[in-house]
Amino acid sequence: MSARMGINNADRIRIVLLNTSHPGNIGAAARAMKTMCLHRLYLVQPGQFPCAEATARASGADDLLAKAVVCASMEEALQGCHLVAGLSARRRSVGWPSVNPRQCMERIFEQPDQEVALVFGNEQSGMSNEELGRCNLLVHIPANPDYSSLNLGAAVQVMAHEFRMAIEMQEPQSPVLASDAPVASADQLERMYSHLEETLVRLEFLDPTNPRLLMHRIRRLYNRASLDEREVQILRGILSATNQKLDQLRSK
Amino acid sequence: MSARMGINNADRIRIVLLNTSHPGNIGAAARAMKTMCLHRLYLVQPGQFPCAEATARASGADDLLAKAVVCASMEEALQGCHLVAGLSARRRSVGWPSVNPRQCMERIFEQPDQEVALVFGNEQSGMSNEELGRCNLLVHIPANPDYSSLNLGAAVQVMAHEFRMAIEMQEPQSPVLASDAPVASADQLERMYSHLEETLVRLEFLDPTNPRLLMHRIRRLYNRASLDEREVQILRGILSATNQKLDQLRSK
Repeated sequence: MSARMGINNADRIRIVLLNTSHPGNIGAAARAMKTMCLHRLYLVQPGQFPCAEATARASGADDLLAKAVVCASMEEALQGCHLVAGLSARRRSVGWPSVNPRQCMERIFEQPDQEVALVFGNEQSGMSNEELGRCNLLVHIPANPDYSSLNLGAAVQVMAHEFRMAIEMQEPQSPVLASDAPVASADQLERMYSHLEETLVRLEFLDPTNPRLLMHRIRRLYNRASLDEREVQILRGILSATNQKLDQLRSK
Repeated sequence: MSARMGINNADRIRIVLLNTSHPGNIGAAARAMKTMCLHRLYLVQPGQFPCAEATARASGADDLLAKAVVCASMEEALQGCHLVAGLSARRRSVGWPSVNPRQCMERIFEQPDQEVALVFGNEQSGMSNEELGRCNLLVHIPANPDYSSLNLGAAVQVMAHEFRMAIEMQEPQSPVLASDAPVASADQLERMYSHLEETLVRLEFLDPTNPRLLMHRIRRLYNRASLDEREVQILRGILSATNQKLDQLRSK
């Protein structure tokens, strides 16, 4: 499946925000959605909407705000949905089926014909038990147990990112090559680049008044290769040998 | 590996922010880091730091700001790092090795002894070619090609979330059960719950003045089961049969 086709899944996913108090958070949610190609925003009894603060925070995603569906009840916002996934900041007591964001996306992509709602509760109080009762899946974003202060915009961003990544992971991936020797450290590489640059100037291959573009291309080449420590030693050995010849040449 | 052990990986990962213009973004980055257990913040020539706006946006993650390492150069911030992964908003022209956030975390977790830097460029200009030249891996967060307006805090949040998820995915996962029949829609479930509630009141099993707790438990049970359409039909058939008996009883 190509990314372009996968993106069509955005058409069956609505982001439902319940009783959002701060209009800025509605704007932040819209921005987070749009960065990852989601576009269907439902607002259940928002504290203030439309609102200049929401538009300002949306920062170019105001088209999502313009076509947002404002609903009088959660029930209205969920009309026609098959999968209702509620975001829950804390792990609930036993019994509710709870998945992480990645598992939630797997579930969504397994059933390509289902209409899906991702539901976010009020900023302070989260979702009430009655609201949770309308969800058939709870999603828990793994966080720091001592500081799970994920704000609404950040939670929407995480879910939207997982949506976009689910599409990305369906595409053929370029292999990630791992080195089998210890990878050279950034310091070792910088010393090698300095050594190389000095040598290239001495070879009159590099214009010392404008070394940038050439050195950039050389760095790109070596960084792509992910040099290990032994390779750095070899390359620096070549540079040392070259410099010895240059020394001999100068002393003639 | 338990989550608690996996979290130790945070000790070898530094978040490096280059020439950040707006102190609020430094605060937002600290907050995003702390929600996902990252804690080592390096600031290369920040526009303004320390700053009240950064502290305000950090919102309880100000301990990360207090121990942030302010550096005069990128080189200084990368001292001792083996893997230097630079966040790049746009796909670069051919040649730079570029991975997505998930592949980046795989690379990090494959080499548990390596010191890692995740580097974020300036808000407006991103990373210069010279800064890119110091990275041995480029990370591209997949986004909306027509609106890739991911702000600094959001980009840090995405990477921190992928870090936390990488730990989560190492833990044994609870199986996600898929239904083999069409899943009931939210509307169908709501109608069933109404039907059930009416019936339970008629059965004098449910106190109509205080139905909440019992209905909540019943919803939890059925939502956990992820009812399919046929099961809803069966349950509603039982309710209809019960109501017929109750009608007969009343007419006697």
